[in-house]
Amino acid sequence: MESTNLLRQIEFIKEVDKLKYILRKTKLLNSNRNENDAEHSWHLALMALVLVDHANFPVDLLKVIKMLLIHDIVEIDAGDTFIYDTQKNHTNTVEERKAAQRIFGLLPDEQAADLIAIWEEFEENQTNEAKFARAMDRLEPLLQNTSNNGGTWAEFDVKYEQVYSRKQVIQQGSDRIWQYADQLLNDSVEKGILKK
Amino acid sequence: MESTNLLRQIEFIKEVDKLKYILRKTKLLNSNRNENDAEHSWHLALMALVLVDHANFPVDLLKVIKMLLIHDIVEIDAGDTFIYDTQKNHTNTVEERKAAQRIFGLLPDEQAADLIAIWEEFEENQTNEAKFARAMDRLEPLLQNTSNNGGTWAEFDVKYEQVYSRKQVIQQGSDRIWQYADQLLNDSVEKGILKK
Repeated sequence: MESTNLLRQIEFIKEVDKLKYILRKTKLLNSNRNENDAEHSWHLALMALVLVDHANFPVDLLKVIKMLLIHDIVEIDAGDTFIYDTQKNHTNTVEERKAAQRIFGLLPDEQAADLIAIWEEFEENQTNEAKFARAMDRLEPLLQNTSNNGGTWAEFDVKYEQVYSRKQVIQQGSDRIWQYADQLLNDSVEKGILKK
Repeated sequence: MESTNLLRQIEFIKEVDKLKYILRKTKLLNSNRNENDAEHSWHLALMALVLVDHANFPVDLLKVIKMLLIHDIVEIDAGDTFIYDTQKNHTNTVEERKAAQRIFGLLPDEQAADLIAIWEEFEENQTNEAKFARAMDRLEPLLQNTSNNGGTWAEFDVKYEQVYSRKQVIQQGSDRIWQYADQLLNDSVEKGILKK
């Protein structure tokens, strides 16, 4: 039984290698190279580890990190959705749910159910862990875009108001990080790399 | 004070973005594209999360994942060392120690000391967490090379005996995973993609 589990887990581990090919719209810091979902997930997990003391509430750090390591795996099947794409609703589409069933479903049943539950918790954004994890997911592109002369904001003509409303969810996870992020947005407007 | 800490942490978070440019010798699964250290670190952390029940002993999973998220950060300054490079001793070179001081040293002092201690624990490979983390680090390239018709073994003419001695440390972390890995090595010899 345990050997069968191992074989299923190895199949999952091989399958998720594909996340390294899923490109995001945002570029690496001071760079023209698109970030892929695997390195993005690594960066967010590390950010959570480093920034956890700024959470508005005590969080289970292991759970936050699990969320961040797996949060984009569904994009192997469903693709990356650009956060400012108004044509497409990002959250929990039918495609993403099907992807979760297929990809996590490679794992032993109990483990698959556990990880799907953690992924759904992240998507629903109700628990403390989900809110803090989401704050990480919103902070990273802010650092990227400000380092890239506006980055995707400039490239796709995204305005301050749209960015502000997407970034403000950082506050649900951390007032202190939001204060920093809000200042970065104001600085970006002042520098002319984000338009009002 | 806490705001000053946040600024130092943000500097660290920006600096480690460079890990996404450090290329390993191994290629992605069924691919000709080199893996970078950031996506490698993500994959290992996720493997630990999925495979933890196969550890030979109870492990603190959060600590294992912390180790894996940070284990290669020193390579930003010290570069990647190929595991079969006999000219260069991989473990804890002077360069790597200097890199750890510089890069983790961007963080608030206490946090820097914590992460350096975790990195050293991984390097020393004495604790249960380090042994299990290292098993992940040795397993991933095995999956990659077997998917790539021998991969770095073929490319750099590395023989079975060398591979076996490097891979056997997997057993220190997990007998069951080692059993699987040992079988993969034997299969590779049989298929002619690993030479005796």
